[in-house]
Amino acid sequence: MRMRHKKHGEERIAACSAYRIGFDDLLRTRDPQSFFPVPGPLHLEIGCGKGRFSCEMANRNPTSNFIAMERVPNVACNALENARARYEGVTGTADNLRILIGNAEHLAELFPEHSIAVIYLNFSDPWPKTGYAKRRLTHTRFLNIYRQILIPGGLLRLKTDNAGLFAFSLEEFQQAGLEVLWKTDDLHHETGEYAEQNVQTEYESAFSSQGIPIHMAVVRFQV
Amino acid sequence: MRMRHKKHGEERIAACSAYRIGFDDLLRTRDPQSFFPVPGPLHLEIGCGKGRFSCEMANRNPTSNFIAMERVPNVACNALENARARYEGVTGTADNLRILIGNAEHLAELFPEHSIAVIYLNFSDPWPKTGYAKRRLTHTRFLNIYRQILIPGGLLRLKTDNAGLFAFSLEEFQQAGLEVLWKTDDLHHETGEYAEQNVQTEYESAFSSQGIPIHMAVVRFQV
Repeated sequence: MRMRHKKHGEERIAACSAYRIGFDDLLRTRDPQSFFPVPGPLHLEIGCGKGRFSCEMANRNPTSNFIAMERVPNVACNALENARARYEGVTGTADNLRILIGNAEHLAELFPEHSIAVIYLNFSDPWPKTGYAKRRLTHTRFLNIYRQILIPGGLLRLKTDNAGLFAFSLEEFQQAGLEVLWKTDDLHHETGEYAEQNVQTEYESAFSSQGIPIHMAVVRFQV
Repeated sequence: MRMRHKKHGEERIAACSAYRIGFDDLLRTRDPQSFFPVPGPLHLEIGCGKGRFSCEMANRNPTSNFIAMERVPNVACNALENARARYEGVTGTADNLRILIGNAEHLAELFPEHSIAVIYLNFSDPWPKTGYAKRRLTHTRFLNIYRQILIPGGLLRLKTDNAGLFAFSLEEFQQAGLEVLWKTDDLHHETGEYAEQNVQTEYESAFSSQGIPIHMAVVRFQV
């Protein structure tokens, strides 16, 4: 979906600087924990959109730190404002969420080895044409980067409404020798812990209300 | 404090088996995540008493898993019953807390390398006599074990009312070359994230209401 031009985008981003990790700052320091007042297990959402998922996850897990990454500045602008509203709106909220405007292509340069506990891919672009398979965020090319930046036994949690991307991802996981701990083709009709603890994204609520099933997989990188 | 003999202790423990990690089972598998329905960053409290701290931490952080370890079976029995009440009492509670009856001496045999994100020591026995310094849970002997089982950049979070144990611990941290990220001699009169997000133990509430200051330190093991 093409975003309309946002008025005063730069000013709006600057006003939320306390909730942003500067791309260049992280590139220089490679110390993601230093952007939080309290260190803790680090969770990374790649492609956070307006940030609803990471906001809610950060609320639910105050002892962990969350970085929500978004490539498109105009979209990240909303995530930043939501991150600020979340923290400043409720007394006692943990200061454990930061927005990073950047492209997944740079992950290996931004994050040190073994620094992330969990990576979330929520409704990533499926890049359906074969020629663009390399851009899919579950392509082996990316799995190798995740392996590098995840802790031993680190997790990748994938949700998508796109059956093609899901099938592709499962194949890539298998070829990479990754352990699929859990998967489903219809998350919202599952029972058990994964379904009960699920936090919905903006897209997910919209899709689900149209009856579109949500696929989910949880993958563990070698211990 | 000496516990009175508990009636039917074994039966009471058996009734909570769903919330317990068997010492022998963990020794055999060395796979702590396998005792939880959903894997996640692992937190370990050593010496959990009746388990109030870990119960509340598990409530507040549903995406992480918590193991609360207690050496004394009669005390662990209360922790087990509290863990069961916590989970079974409220619909939607995450199934992310397990009690382990065992001694910290066995940590290196129970947990694989780099498997734990955060270790909590809350009001550990200060072993004030010099001859017993080796039993203190912040003795170099234990720090070396924590280094082994923690992930890179893993954390040790210590709280105590005992000024002697606190001073000893800070010396041990320094000698071990560990990075003290934060410390205070009076947690309950601090401001900022650490104080605001603090979860009190049973002892802590009692001590604090008597005006006894609580010392706290957060230490990071090498990234």
